Amino acid sequence: MQIAPEIAAMLAGTGASSDPVAPVLIALVLIAAGAALGGHWMKKLGQPAVLGELLVGMLAANLAYYFREPAITIVREGPTMLNVIHAALEQNLSLAEAAAKLLPAGEHTRQLVEILGSAAAPMAVSVFLFVDQLARVAVIILLFLVGLETSVKEMRRVGVAALAVACIGVVVPFLLGVRFMAVMMPGAPLEKDIFIGAILTATSVGITARVFRDLKQAHRTEAKIILGAAVIDDVLGLMILAVVSGLVVTGTVSVVSISTITLKALVFLAGAIGVGMWVTPRLVRRLARLELENVKLLFGLGFAFLLAWLANAVGLATIVGAFAAGLVLEEFFLDELKGHSLRDLLSPLETLVVPVFFVLMGMQVKLETFADARVVAIAALLTVAAIAGKLVAGLGCSPKLDRLSVGIGMMPRGEVGLIFASIGKGLGVVSDAVFSAVVIMVMVTTLLTPPLLKMALARGDRRAT
Amino acid sequence: MQIAPEIAAMLAGTGASSDPVAPVLIALVLIAAGAALGGHWMKKLGQPAVLGELLVGMLAANLAYYFREPAITIVREGPTMLNVIHAALEQNLSLAEAAAKLLPAGEHTRQLVEILGSAAAPMAVSVFLFVDQLARVAVIILLFLVGLETSVKEMRRVGVAALAVACIGVVVPFLLGVRFMAVMMPGAPLEKDIFIGAILTATSVGITARVFRDLKQAHRTEAKIILGAAVIDDVLGLMILAVVSGLVVTGTVSVVSISTITLKALVFLAGAIGVGMWVTPRLVRRLARLELENVKLLFGLGFAFLLAWLANAVGLATIVGAFAAGLVLEEFFLDELKGHSLRDLLSPLETLVVPVFFVLMGMQVKLETFADARVVAIAALLTVAAIAGKLVAGLGCSPKLDRLSVGIGMMPRGEVGLIFASIGKGLGVVSDAVFSAVVIMVMVTTLLTPPLLKMALARGDRRAT
Repeated sequence: MQIAPEIAAMLAGTGASSDPVAPVLIALVLIAAGAALGGHWMKKLGQPAVLGELLVGMLAANLAYYFREPAITIVREGPTMLNVIHAALEQNLSLAEAAAKLLPAGEHTRQLVEILGSAAAPMAVSVFLFVDQLARVAVIILLFLVGLETSVKEMRRVGVAALAVACIGVVVPFLLGVRFMAVMMPGAPLEKDIFIGAILTATSVGITARVFRDLKQAHRTEAKIILGAAVIDDVLGLMILAVVSGLVVTGTVSVVSISTITLKALVFLAGAIGVGMWVTPRLVRRLARLELENVKLLFGLGFAFLLAWLANAVGLATIVGAFAAGLVLEEFFLDELKGHSLRDLLSPLETLVVPVFFVLMGMQVKLETFADARVVAIAALLTVAAIAGKLVAGLGCSPKLDRLSVGIGMMPRGEVGLIFASIGKGLGVVSDAVFSAVVIMVMVTTLLTPPLLKMALARGDRRAT
Repeated sequence: MQIAPEIAAMLAGTGASSDPVAPVLIALVLIAAGAALGGHWMKKLGQPAVLGELLVGMLAANLAYYFREPAITIVREGPTMLNVIHAALEQNLSLAEAAAKLLPAGEHTRQLVEILGSAAAPMAVSVFLFVDQLARVAVIILLFLVGLETSVKEMRRVGVAALAVACIGVVVPFLLGVRFMAVMMPGAPLEKDIFIGAILTATSVGITARVFRDLKQAHRTEAKIILGAAVIDDVLGLMILAVVSGLVVTGTVSVVSISTITLKALVFLAGAIGVGMWVTPRLVRRLARLELENVKLLFGLGFAFLLAWLANAVGLATIVGAFAAGLVLEEFFLDELKGHSLRDLLSPLETLVVPVFFVLMGMQVKLETFADARVVAIAALLTVAAIAGKLVAGLGCSPKLDRLSVGIGMMPRGEVGLIFASIGKGLGVVSDAVFSAVVIMVMVTTLLTPPLLKMALARGDRRAT
């Protein structure tokens, strides 16, 4: 009679015939409605829609957390929750046990463990996993679209400038970070400072790409330079992580393994562009013979997903692969396939899923982190280093361009910084306070970019006219 | 130094920067490619594309299972895997423990437990959960589209015929099932036979709806009757489940609770249609004032998801809610909103996600079930009862219509039957052999419907001309 409670629930009108997708549906409706309203308000204020999505997510999640809403408490954990799920499956623990084991002891963890052990957990976890993956798919679609609006020729034209911006934007924040940490925590071993410097290097280009799209400025040379620099950034980031973790773990740097990593990444990028431009038109000619509905859309997205997967396999970010796919696919390759242009076909999908990514990003801004004065002090220093370093990077491009906008566009940090920080935490070189400070730095650079970039672009336009 | 292996993996080129969405991306690419090829081949053979999607899923999954591929072994479990995840979260167990506890002992369970406790589990489970939920969203979109092509007026016109088809199609399979079971397992208590009869009643309309769309016959009166009958079926199914579980659990039938369930379902349907038709035009007028991109698509899907969620909350199937949403939304309500028609806007989304549902359905056809002769014998009887019962139901509509096509269209069974069966298993009235036989019955009716319906429609057309 094990299932008897389910029948009781059924007789009460919910339960047995309950479709597990129902909570996901209502979550999507709420996210879409919030995104639409937030975007609408911000547009009225002359701001990019993405800022509204971030703010709506932030407000809703912090309010719901205050009332201990299970699904949102779990969604707010973001990557941390994924780590918990990963650990639970690999070590054959329940989620509650894994959370208790993995997260720092405290009131916050106690609440999370309680929720993960409660009857609300199945619904909350399934909503989290679906919405989190959907957001990741969404940002891949966004970067693919951005790539579609850029040609390989244009990227080659901005190549040198992008390289300069990327290199300055990696070196300056790194040096500033090391220096600030040496002042803030004198006596700490140098490798600790070096690790924290490394955390400040990697740009996260999703926000910037979206702001340029919101403002219909994606065709500008500044946008192309930022995108090129972000791709180079990602390769540099791989090398830096290999160097600093080598230093911390073994005290030495393995030249062979670092060369291997770098080579793999470069081969992927060159291969994707070279092979892609050669293979795609031929493949399309064959596909045109099959009678498939919406074949253009299927092929385009399939190609983007495939390159994103490949990029991940060589250690790069999935969005770098998606961007490369867009870069390689020229609209005229697809002329033999029937139907609207790929960009038009993707527009409904973009509207539906891309806001999910930014609302979720907003939901993971934890206001309670700002309650610890010491953390806020470290965060302020890290944020200054992070922002100043990337603003200086803007000087890497020609003075004829809007260098301030390029610098601001490089500002946002994201997952890569958090991944560096969590590895550092595992290695014992990043303390809990510094980790929280990194989280604040990521949140602040994310929230500041849309309004600042909008202001900088308007100012640049005024000067130009 | 807990994270050191991650750095080792990172240095080898995978790991730390690894995006959890990568396996989902490659799974989606493979599913889409399989669906496109399968659909293409079947169209060449003059069959509906959906049959190709089912067969590709079936072949790929059974082959991969043979080689113990972790993700596919888990995906093949379908609803059973969801039950395992649910139980693990509610009872604070690991997935491996929950599977060992929940599933019948045997080689198959041993393998699954091993996979769930292995390093491949995080990837496999996350692919399963995302793809499973996406498939559920897909069938909601499909039924919403089918609803959009139907007006409330048309449904009212076929109401009486649909009611007759639904009632016959519930009563006849039920009686046949009870009779066959009494012959097959003499001496079993009557409530056992009644429960198995009940399992045979509920039609699953996804396949039929898709076949009518593949053959571009969705406008036919036969299609409307089947859809109307399927909605009524779902309400009847609720009542039957309440009656039979009441009989088995307490030996009595609670008139009050059954009336409550039925009332709720009817209020939902009447409310959705009445309120929807009155509120929608007014809401659209307000929305037209907001400057939102793709607002028509956002509003349409949001409305469908909301009604699907509400339907689930009153105990009906989510797809009944989605169909009702499509029924209520008339294209002209949305004329004030800019852009293409809702159906055109949904077409790319339909192409991308609907095949996922059918490939997954094919993947859950377990060929090894057919190895047990006793199970196959019971399955054969159940299948005959299931098919004959619904063919007779076709007589419920006017002889001027193609009654055979209506009967075949009502044939497929799906989740509802499996849910009934698993409740029966929990109550001890459905043995493991009967459960496996029900699974086979569901598979056979699913796979037979596309080719038979295509033949019946072609024959009906020949007779008519």
